[in-house]
Amino acid sequence: MDKAKGISSAPKWYVACRSGDLNPGPFRSVVAGVPLALFRAGGRAGALLDRCPHRNAPLSGGSVRGDELECAYHGWRFTGDGRCAFAAGINVDRITRACHASSFPVVEQQGFVWVSSSEGNPPRHPPFVFELMSKPGYASDVAVLEAEGSLQAVAENALDVPHTMYLHGGLFRRKGGRNVEKEVEIRNYGDRVEAEYFGEERPSGLAGRFLAPGGGMVRHVDRFILPSITEVDYRLGDKTHVNVSVAMTPISEFLTRLYAVVSFRLPMPALFIKPFLRLLFLKVFNQDATILARQSANIRLFGGEQFATIEADTLGSHIARLLKEADTGPEIRVLKEPIVRRVRIVL
Amino acid sequence: MDKAKGISSAPKWYVACRSGDLNPGPFRSVVAGVPLALFRAGGRAGALLDRCPHRNAPLSGGSVRGDELECAYHGWRFTGDGRCAFAAGINVDRITRACHASSFPVVEQQGFVWVSSSEGNPPRHPPFVFELMSKPGYASDVAVLEAEGSLQAVAENALDVPHTMYLHGGLFRRKGGRNVEKEVEIRNYGDRVEAEYFGEERPSGLAGRFLAPGGGMVRHVDRFILPSITEVDYRLGDKTHVNVSVAMTPISEFLTRLYAVVSFRLPMPALFIKPFLRLLFLKVFNQDATILARQSANIRLFGGEQFATIEADTLGSHIARLLKEADTGPEIRVLKEPIVRRVRIVL
Amino acid sequence: MDKAKGISSAPKWYVACRSGDLNPGPFRSVVAGVPLALFRAGGRAGALLDRCPHRNAPLSGGSVRGDELECAYHGWRFTGDGRCAFAAGINVDRITRACHASSFPVVEQQGFVWVSSSEGNPPRHPPFVFELMSKPGYASDVAVLEAEGSLQAVAENALDVPHTMYLHGGLFRRKGGRNVEKEVEIRNYGDRVEAEYFGEERPSGLAGRFLAPGGGMVRHVDRFILPSITEVDYRLGDKTHVNVSVAMTPISEFLTRLYAVVSFRLPMPALFIKPFLRLLFLKVFNQDATILARQSANIRLFGGEQFATIEADTLGSHIARLLKEADTGPEIRVLKEPIVRRVRIVL
Repeated sequence: MDKAKGISSAPKWYVACRSGDLNPGPFRSVVAGVPLALFRAGGRAGALLDRCPHRNAPLSGGSVRGDELECAYHGWRFTGDGRCAFAAGINVDRITRACHASSFPVVEQQGFVWVSSSEGNPPRHPPFVFELMSKPGYASDVAVLEAEGSLQAVAENALDVPHTMYLHGGLFRRKGGRNVEKEVEIRNYGDRVEAEYFGEERPSGLAGRFLAPGGGMVRHVDRFILPSITEVDYRLGDKTHVNVSVAMTPISEFLTRLYAVVSFRLPMPALFIKPFLRLLFLKVFNQDATILARQSANIRLFGGEQFATIEADTLGSHIARLLKEADTGPEIRVLKEPIVRRVRIVL
Repeated sequence: MDKAKGISSAPKWYVACRSGDLNPGPFRSVVAGVPLALFRAGGRAGALLDRCPHRNAPLSGGSVRGDELECAYHGWRFTGDGRCAFAAGINVDRITRACHASSFPVVEQQGFVWVSSSEGNPPRHPPFVFELMSKPGYASDVAVLEAEGSLQAVAENALDVPHTMYLHGGLFRRKGGRNVEKEVEIRNYGDRVEAEYFGEERPSGLAGRFLAPGGGMVRHVDRFILPSITEVDYRLGDKTHVNVSVAMTPISEFLTRLYAVVSFRLPMPALFIKPFLRLLFLKVFNQDATILARQSANIRLFGGEQFATIEADTLGSHIARLLKEADTGPEIRVLKEPIVRRVRIVL
Repeated sequence: MDKAKGISSAPKWYVACRSGDLNPGPFRSVVAGVPLALFRAGGRAGALLDRCPHRNAPLSGGSVRGDELECAYHGWRFTGDGRCAFAAGINVDRITRACHASSFPVVEQQGFVWVSSSEGNPPRHPPFVFELMSKPGYASDVAVLEAEGSLQAVAENALDVPHTMYLHGGLFRRKGGRNVEKEVEIRNYGDRVEAEYFGEERPSGLAGRFLAPGGGMVRHVDRFILPSITEVDYRLGDKTHVNVSVAMTPISEFLTRLYAVVSFRLPMPALFIKPFLRLLFLKVFNQDATILARQSANIRLFGGEQFATIEADTLGSHIARLLKEADTGPEIRVLKEPIVRRVRIVL
């Protein structure tokens, strides 16, 4: 298995699937290069290495029998924590340790099944919580998507502002010779980094006009949280708040799955706005996915990436550094007071 | 070319094709990782390395001219033993040794074309004979199949009993909590190993009820013979005898071709039973081929196999050992008296 | 990127595309393993490495804006010589050297866009000129084709005579036991090698009868010119002259693009003969492309080529040697007087 970029030996939570994928189960999911067989045993979600210890058939090809997962080849059965409960041809008392399956810690919350990237060991901190998902006054929508890009490339793309004028030209910002300098404050908290844009008016494109017909000033914050969360947060006065939070799961070096939660409070009925937001989100995502796939194919073709980074790549180099520190450095220290830096970019 | 597993430097006979495949020929067949061009020259089957010595075009893309195989590119012609008999542009007397093709020893018997795995050198012993194929009172049927598994995995699968309750559940044995211990005698003859099951009643599934409506005790022997034969042999009294002998040809590390001969004597007309047996055999084979392909894909994905072996894997570990000895050890010694071991498995 | 065979560090001109491919452009072309984005900037053709220096998206996926090529991802813009003229988010005066794209020298002539195989450096000598293309009294036809073979294999195939009796049997020469020896003069000029065939009558096949219904003696010269030109030249008296010149572009180890120019003067109207010649040329090419693909597949399968070469391979070994010298040796010296050798081949 190829180790996906941005995966260290320190355990991390990644979303392996949604709760509904386990009914009935088993469900196969690759997390950080590791194939898993997920199933629900006695109400609790379990995640086993997708390889029967006996003859290495994929357990995800088996079937759930009561609280156990049965292999399709020789009928061996495993509990949610990997214990071999039955092996065809021998009595239960002759089952040895070699017969047990590898298992991974699981936390199920908000309809997502989070799995530790490390066999047996859970991360120190609990998984990320999508706060607005359960906040009164907010509506939410979930989408599961895949992009052919490394976790780092997908995260940078999600939080990058300048490309919106080109790749998504017309949707958010109009490109042209306006050359307006905007101030950006970058706040680094050790385990997360965020960029706040000042002096932004309501986006001039189609999406902007629809979401805030009255215009006005925007409070716009982009955020990356280790190991794998991106957030794009837009506020327009008190009434309008749109937040796109994405839990990214690295599958392999150039493939990332996105569990995206779009939460919003708007001065119009959610029922009416939801399909429109979904359409807009998917249109933007498809443009991003296309360029990410072409970028990845080119990086592969050239045998590696070779990037020129400029100041307008506001969060890109921070994301790269955080991911690297999480993979290779000592335990991440969370700062109470962020390190603040201000840059100016032309938009 | 990838060397297929279980292939040593000591020459071995493998079936390359059936006799009918050479009419008209040439016929391409890969044996133990080696691409061959087979054709019939003057009534005798010949096997050449599938690469013209001149410009390396595949000879199997050429055509048979009289007793010679002509390359499609420059018209060079080769006899069954590889001699270059004609090279366009030069007189025959200027043909040098470099112009000759590599050839492999061939034995054609019982409609099968056996080829030595070693260029130029035949194995010490003649190829395997399917005895019941020519025995009076027996009918036979031949099937040529391919399975995505190593020769070792395919052989173990063919001779494994516990999986029949799960993978082929309902066809042979019913799974359940019966927990009946059976005695198995394992006899190791050095170049072959067999397992005899005692106390087996007629299989309880559909196939059993059809083949032996009256029930009764079975004499059941499973056998592996180096380098590549599996036999499953069922006798029910004097009248019923079903034998499935398979000559396996390793193509590559995870691909094996099977030349299967089903021979039988039954208390009902062969004409009537043949289509039923064929159907049953193919249904079982398809289930096996599916799990073998998934097992192989998983072993590749995980970068190698990691098996837990238990006593119920009656012949599996013996097959692995015999294949390893044949590949790496000294000349195999055939024992007159087998080494006998008795184990008990729960079926 | 895989370095294609026959590519040295000394710069060489190869055709990257036809002039028409740049209207509107950009156009992607791989030359000697290097992906290029070609476009026309202010009337002049430019060739950039097909990788945006910013985030490595392929520039060939962008669009031409005035005299600049704009990347589809962040809108960076480049001139024909690779200078970054605009980078979204920063002022032009903050563009650094790292922001510029790699560019390759270009010469556009006779409707072909020739690109140097070396970034920044043009070869010492100008690109090859198809002389007959602009000669009064001649008509020409151009075809762009691809063959799955190395440049060396494609060149040898184009200039090889014996295979015409087999692969193209019936079109040019009839195979059979005629065993007529022909004299061939091989002239080596250092940067080119040619073979002249003496005593050849008009080809006996269909093509020969059509092109020269009156029969007669042929002047037939085959020629290879470094780094990548093949020429087949047939004259029959003063009136008939057919020349097939091919500029080959190595794409990868086993893929070569052919820019073929068929020029001719015949005792019948060009308008009438052109479709026939085109059909004949494509029929021959398809047979060649098929065997080249099978040869390449086989060489890959066997992990490398292993050729037996005989005297009838008139130009093959010379081509191999010239390509090797051009790749590894000192500067090629052009001889005023060729080294001449005469051989006899049986046709």
